[in-house]
Amino acid sequence: MNFLSLLDRTVKKNNSLVCVGLDVDIASLPASAKTLAERIISFNQGIIKATKDLVCAYKPNSAFYEQYGLAGISALLKTIEYIKSQTNIPVILDVKRGDIGHSSAAYAASAFKIFQADAVTVNPYMGFDSLEPFLNYEDKGVFILCLTSNPGAKDFETSIYKNVADKAKKWNKSGNLGLVVGATKPEELKKIRQIVPDLPLLIPGVGVQGGDIAATVKNGVNKNGGRAIINSSRGIIYAQDPRAETQKLRDQINEYRNC
Amino acid sequence: MNFLSLLDRTVKKNNSLVCVGLDVDIASLPASAKTLAERIISFNQGIIKATKDLVCAYKPNSAFYEQYGLAGISALLKTIEYIKSQTNIPVILDVKRGDIGHSSAAYAASAFKIFQADAVTVNPYMGFDSLEPFLNYEDKGVFILCLTSNPGAKDFETSIYKNVADKAKKWNKSGNLGLVVGATKPEELKKIRQIVPDLPLLIPGVGVQGGDIAATVKNGVNKNGGRAIINSSRGIIYAQDPRAETQKLRDQINEYRNC
Repeated sequence: MNFLSLLDRTVKKNNSLVCVGLDVDIASLPASAKTLAERIISFNQGIIKATKDLVCAYKPNSAFYEQYGLAGISALLKTIEYIKSQTNIPVILDVKRGDIGHSSAAYAASAFKIFQADAVTVNPYMGFDSLEPFLNYEDKGVFILCLTSNPGAKDFETSIYKNVADKAKKWNKSGNLGLVVGATKPEELKKIRQIVPDLPLLIPGVGVQGGDIAATVKNGVNKNGGRAIINSSRGIIYAQDPRAETQKLRDQINEYRNC
Repeated sequence: MNFLSLLDRTVKKNNSLVCVGLDVDIASLPASAKTLAERIISFNQGIIKATKDLVCAYKPNSAFYEQYGLAGISALLKTIEYIKSQTNIPVILDVKRGDIGHSSAAYAASAFKIFQADAVTVNPYMGFDSLEPFLNYEDKGVFILCLTSNPGAKDFETSIYKNVADKAKKWNKSGNLGLVVGATKPEELKKIRQIVPDLPLLIPGVGVQGGDIAATVKNGVNKNGGRAIINSSRGIIYAQDPRAETQKLRDQINEYRNC
């Protein structure tokens, strides 16, 4: 089953647009005698068990694993293995990669063959031949950074994000492309949704970063109230009750969906 | 010693602007009974032994290691350890990372603390707060992608690369910033060198990608004939005689340097 079918099916089954960001920080975990890798895996397993009927995707950000070297990367591999063995929920590996063609091909092989991700995030700066090796995996999703949620988006992104959306639309020959758009930019989200009426949008920036949920849902979903993957990381995984927090976010989002 | 001093010292000592790209592809290595990691490390050690008096830097591209999973990443760690134990040559870890602030901080910790790189490449698309965590390592070099050597550079980079160079100049508070500019764009290289007269430029695209050496040197060096790090990867590491090939490139470059 390709990424988009898997996503649509999970959105329907769990009646949810919530994506949980598995961005583990060892300093926020309880002390333990276990190894670093075991602590990360065990923490993630707890989050996954508590939320797997409430989400449409999981999104581990590779940065948080790479910072712990081989132990962290091993924990990332095992976390994805666990999600795939216990659920049918798609995994978006947030790596924001992009390089000249044959280097991007190596990054794509890493994400899709080694880590077994269902989708990745990629950086468009270097242009089409840096994205093509990812897009060639037709059953996998490829989310291109368009307009991100951070303050630095004003430095370069605001001047070219519409061009990125226009080009992405043309490059979507295999129907496996999506865009990353921050929830902190509701007006621009609306413009991007007009350019790509039916592409999946990965939307970080609610929760700790402060994006408004009503505007995000209204401007981000497609005409069927779907194709928006609304991510919260720290706001959920470090909540006292991650399940309750996920349920709350799912219900808040569903209040504004037309479905 | 900070990155720039280390670079300048190595350029002078080896009288060289050549950077060797350690972009290992297992399919190009001789068959062997050793493990994957051992084969990669042993291949890289051979290249390093053969070239360490002829280069100003080594640049492993993380993509080529990540494609082999933990074995590849372990080989990358051990390759950098080897360079640091056997030489005083700076290591530029080519990762092209960039993410929102706290994620970029994790990537910076990975590159500088786990991998012990002397410098990294980063992607400017997400703006200043995605680069700042790298720049905060004042002793480390940070090369921002400006205008790359691949065909896709025309999609987005050509419209903003001067803006990237202008902003990079302002952001260089700690004197540890550099730019990546492809050798396949000699006229633009000249314009960028005018904007940043003394910043180190990492210049890939000679060798297999076809950039012209005379124009690259003429337009890329600073007024003292330095601060240009001219990278060749496949053209050197898969040559019949990597040492001879490195020496040839060094001498060709030195023909056009004013020093």
